[in-house]
Amino acid sequence: MNFITSGQNPIIKEIKALKEKKYRDQKGLYFIEGIRFIEEAIKEKELISKVLVSEKIKEVKGGKEILKLLEEEKIGNIYTVPNKLYLEVTDTENPQGILAVMRKKSVSVESVYDDKNFFVVLDSIQDPGNMGTIIRTADAAGATAVIVSKGCVDVYNPKVLRATMGSIFHLPICYSENLLETLQSLKDRGIVLCAAHLRGSKNYFDLNYKGNVAIIVGNEANGITDSVADLSDELVKIPMEGKSESLNASVAAGLLIYEVLRCRMKQ
Amino acid sequence: MNFITSGQNPIIKEIKALKEKKYRDQKGLYFIEGIRFIEEAIKEKELISKVLVSEKIKEVKGGKEILKLLEEEKIGNIYTVPNKLYLEVTDTENPQGILAVMRKKSVSVESVYDDKNFFVVLDSIQDPGNMGTIIRTADAAGATAVIVSKGCVDVYNPKVLRATMGSIFHLPICYSENLLETLQSLKDRGIVLCAAHLRGSKNYFDLNYKGNVAIIVGNEANGITDSVADLSDELVKIPMEGKSESLNASVAAGLLIYEVLRCRMKQ
Repeated sequence: MNFITSGQNPIIKEIKALKEKKYRDQKGLYFIEGIRFIEEAIKEKELISKVLVSEKIKEVKGGKEILKLLEEEKIGNIYTVPNKLYLEVTDTENPQGILAVMRKKSVSVESVYDDKNFFVVLDSIQDPGNMGTIIRTADAAGATAVIVSKGCVDVYNPKVLRATMGSIFHLPICYSENLLETLQSLKDRGIVLCAAHLRGSKNYFDLNYKGNVAIIVGNEANGITDSVADLSDELVKIPMEGKSESLNASVAAGLLIYEVLRCRMKQ
Repeated sequence: MNFITSGQNPIIKEIKALKEKKYRDQKGLYFIEGIRFIEEAIKEKELISKVLVSEKIKEVKGGKEILKLLEEEKIGNIYTVPNKLYLEVTDTENPQGILAVMRKKSVSVESVYDDKNFFVVLDSIQDPGNMGTIIRTADAAGATAVIVSKGCVDVYNPKVLRATMGSIFHLPICYSENLLETLQSLKDRGIVLCAAHLRGSKNYFDLNYKGNVAIIVGNEANGITDSVADLSDELVKIPMEGKSESLNASVAAGLLIYEVLRCRMKQ
């Protein structure tokens, strides 16, 4: 254990800087917070760069256990700080007093293909909560990977990470600099591109998703772009029986994602 | 139009007080914000108590149109305030400059029964975003009504209202002081109580929801209580194929709610 007491310490400065996307991109690092999240991170321990712990962690439920686990797993670079200093760097309102700086893991779409491809593609999702929730849903449904377009909110934004509830470590997240090219390469491999769209004529539950499939989820306000719609193999609709004009983006994505699982589980 | 310039004006004080549940309960009032929300409210205009408008509303997109609509619909009690004063009362970060104080509408479960009952029952939902999103989903799926238990976050909390996206006016919201009694009365009418639960053995998509049904959605952290589970006719599970341990409550609720619609749309 190392002790840091000054806010001018370069490690403290680094963590504060990582709240901004610019620095996360520059350094290839990001940070996560909370005991449960750190537990998940330990399963991918080669990605942990360093851990920052408040002096008060031992007073928190599960605090002693997480320190023991870090020791058992031989995680180095653990720094203890006074609680006051921890509160300066935290991004959460009620912090438990532990955070880990993580190395980003870059995964290419090509490296994750399997024999029952099930991709979830996010096209310009803007709300961090939606982004994280959809990644969590994709994980729960056993998706192969999540592909995020350049126009999406940063996956390593602390609010996105919190909403993933640890799923960020459970399935590959592939970044696409050019979504149309990526989608074309999926098509070239025989993966059926499917999206909810106003032009959709079939209901989302009237398709058969047993084969290789990619579910495309569009921007909260505007949906998928016209060029993505033109490239898609199947445009579907979510029926609206009441007076509501639309669904929350995470809910709509959840319906399509779980419909794939439903089809695959039915013989 | 009436002008208010002082923060000490009783109407300004009333609106500020309505941010707290205690006053909303006492007065039977709440307030909503934003042009689209006010448009929805105008369809239920007998519920509008008064409207507060910032001087700057005319500069906002859609601002002149909403003022015209209020005039055409002969909505009285419209008060204009300097923008500075509006910013003191608003609950939103980037307000459009219009809010309406609304009368609560109390609806009993008995009054909403129909011949194809489809209730969504919320048992101790705590997160305002989840609460609002589930109400929006229930509306979209054409539910008969939403029943909220005493242990839920207040439906008239501004964050809940925002997340409903106006659905609060589209379907009856029934408050249950004693959820077990309410559930028993649903059962007595032949309505099948169905909930997601760890004890569930069937997958949620293996039931037939064509008859009268109530979908019960439990607390984010703890799910439904044991006594609610014991009373339920069907406990189902949502399959988890990945490493995620759970779904976001709004997503899980959305899957069950839309499964009812899917069953009913299939012949």
